[in-house]
Amino acid sequence: MQSLWVENNILSVRNDLPIPALEAGQALIRVRLAGVCSTDLAVLGGYSPFVGVPGHEFVGQVVAAPDAPEWVGQRVVGEINITCGVCAACRAGRKTHCEKRSALGIHSWNGAFAEYLKLPLANLYRVPDTLSDEGAVFTEPLAAALEIQEQLPGLGSERILVVGAGRLGQLVAQTLALTGCDLQVIARYPRQRQLLERRQIAWLPEEALPMGCMDVVVEATGSPAGFEMARKALRARGTLVLKSTYKGDVTLNLSSLVVDEITLIGSRCGPFEPALALLANGQVDPRDQIEACYPLAQAQQAYEEAGQHGRIKVLLAPSSG
Amino acid sequence: MQSLWVENNILSVRNDLPIPALEAGQALIRVRLAGVCSTDLAVLGGYSPFVGVPGHEFVGQVVAAPDAPEWVGQRVVGEINITCGVCAACRAGRKTHCEKRSALGIHSWNGAFAEYLKLPLANLYRVPDTLSDEGAVFTEPLAAALEIQEQLPGLGSERILVVGAGRLGQLVAQTLALTGCDLQVIARYPRQRQLLERRQIAWLPEEALPMGCMDVVVEATGSPAGFEMARKALRARGTLVLKSTYKGDVTLNLSSLVVDEITLIGSRCGPFEPALALLANGQVDPRDQIEACYPLAQAQQAYEEAGQHGRIKVLLAPSSG
Repeated sequence: MQSLWVENNILSVRNDLPIPALEAGQALIRVRLAGVCSTDLAVLGGYSPFVGVPGHEFVGQVVAAPDAPEWVGQRVVGEINITCGVCAACRAGRKTHCEKRSALGIHSWNGAFAEYLKLPLANLYRVPDTLSDEGAVFTEPLAAALEIQEQLPGLGSERILVVGAGRLGQLVAQTLALTGCDLQVIARYPRQRQLLERRQIAWLPEEALPMGCMDVVVEATGSPAGFEMARKALRARGTLVLKSTYKGDVTLNLSSLVVDEITLIGSRCGPFEPALALLANGQVDPRDQIEACYPLAQAQQAYEEAGQHGRIKVLLAPSSG
Repeated sequence: MQSLWVENNILSVRNDLPIPALEAGQALIRVRLAGVCSTDLAVLGGYSPFVGVPGHEFVGQVVAAPDAPEWVGQRVVGEINITCGVCAACRAGRKTHCEKRSALGIHSWNGAFAEYLKLPLANLYRVPDTLSDEGAVFTEPLAAALEIQEQLPGLGSERILVVGAGRLGQLVAQTLALTGCDLQVIARYPRQRQLLERRQIAWLPEEALPMGCMDVVVEATGSPAGFEMARKALRARGTLVLKSTYKGDVTLNLSSLVVDEITLIGSRCGPFEPALALLANGQVDPRDQIEACYPLAQAQQAYEEAGQHGRIKVLLAPSSG
C-alpha cells in the first residue's frame, strides 16, 4: 500500500508496506481523510523516537473486521491510544494513560497517513450519515479540546482567555464559546482572526494581553512565550490549562505559582462521543479551517503548508492517489 | 522596644524602634511567642526585598485596641496578610490574594520578632484558654497546611505522599493523616522520622521513593530535587501540591505534565479557624516539634538552629528579654 514514513527526521512516501495484518478484535480501515496536526510536525522534528507511519487524525471505512463483521462498510473515526486493559491506569478507567499504551502514528503503532490502518474495534466510533468526511476528520482534535471541559466541569461564568488561535486554539475557542463563558482569544495572524470573527469570538492582539484578571487561561501555542503570556493574564488562584506540548524544558518561576496559588493542568486526549455529537449537530463546524487537501504523494508540501504561520488545517487524502 | 531587624541580608537586634503607632481598626499586641519559619530564613537570604522586623508566626496578648476595647487582654493569633478590602481579589473573597496586601514580617509590615506588633482587628483570632502558647504559636503554619484540604476537599481514599518532613511537612502530614488517606512521608533525618513514628505516620527514605503510583503528592522541601521526587512518585492524572517556595527559577519538562495530564497546585496561606480548633482539641499537638526557645538577643543562634538539617521548630520569646 502507499503510505508515509518517518525515520531520523525524514519524511518519505513508500509503496512497499503491506496492508496491516489483523489480530483478534481489530479492524482494518481504509483511510478516507487524515489531518496534519502539530504533533505530526513535532514527531518529524524528533519529539518522539517514533519510526513508522505517522498520522492520528482520520476518518475511514472499515473494510475487514473478522470478529465483528457488522462493522464492515461503516464509516468510522478512532481513538488513538491502544491500551492493554489490565494495568492500574486501565483498571481505574484512565485508559488514555494506559502504562503500556501504543498511540496511532505517534508511538509503536503505524498511523493514518497510509491507505490502510488497523485499530482495535474498541477504539472505533461510527460516524453519523449526516456528518461529512471533512467534518468527521476533526473528531480527534475536537475531543482533545473538549478534554478541558472534562477536567473543569461546570464552566460558564468564568473569564477565559485562550492564548493561540492555531489548529487546536480554534477548536478550544469554539467549544469554550458553547459554555457561555466570557471568552477572549489571543490571535496573531489575519486568517486566525477571520475565523474567530466569523464565529463572533472576541480576539485580541498579543500587545493587548489582559493582565492578572483571567479565571482560566488555556495555553495553546506550545511555546515558552505563550506560556509567559498565559501566566501573566491569570489572576491569583486562577487555572492555567496546558493544551500543547513544549519542545525541550521550560524554565519557570515555581515560587510565583505557590504565592499566587495557581493551578496548572496538563490536558491531552479527550472524549470522542461529545465531539462527534457537536460535529454532527453542527454546533461546531470547523470545515472552513481546511486550507488544502493533498494526496500522499504530495505529503512534503502538506507538511510544509501545515507548518506555515497562520495556516490552520491541512488534510491528506490517502485513498485518492 | 526590642526587635529584630532585617536589611541587606543582615539580621540585627535593635532597641531603638518605637512601639508601633495604631491607626483606626488596629490592635497593639505584645508578642508572647513567635516561630521561626523557612520563609524567615529565605527573607534574610534575599527572597524578598523586605527591610524591617521579620517574623509572622506568633501568639500574643492585645494591649491596646482603641476601636474595640473588649479585645484588650485577649490572647490572640493573627492572619499575616493585611488587605485593602476593595480590590477585585478582596471583593471576590480571595483576601489572602489582595492586590495591595502587606504581609506581617514579609512585605511592608513590621513583624512578630519584636516586643510589640500591630495588626488590624479583622486579622485576629482569640486563643481558647485551654490552648497553651506553645500550641497556639503553630496556628499560622498549621493553617497553611490545612490550605491543601481547602484546595482538595473530600480527601480520604487517596494514596498521598508528602515529600519532606521538616517544619511544614510535619504539619502537612499530621493534618492529612486526619483524613484517613493512605499516607506516606519521605523523611531524611532521624529526628523527622521519630516525630512521624510517634504519630503512627509511615515514613520512607528517599531511596524507597514509590514511582508513578501516588494520587496526590505534596512537595514540602522547596528544593528542585524534592520537586523531581514528587513528580516521579505521581501517577498519570495525579495532583502535585506545591507547598514551599523555591529559590530562583526551576527548569521543568512541561510536556510531561501535558502528556500525563498532571495537575500542579500552588498552596500558601490557609484558614485559621480549623487550625485553632485542631490545636485546641488536641487532634494536632505539635509541641514536641519545638527544639528550643530563645530571647530576641539570641536571635542569631535561633536562626542558625532553625537552618540546621533535621531541626524542626525554633521559637523566640520577644517579651522575655
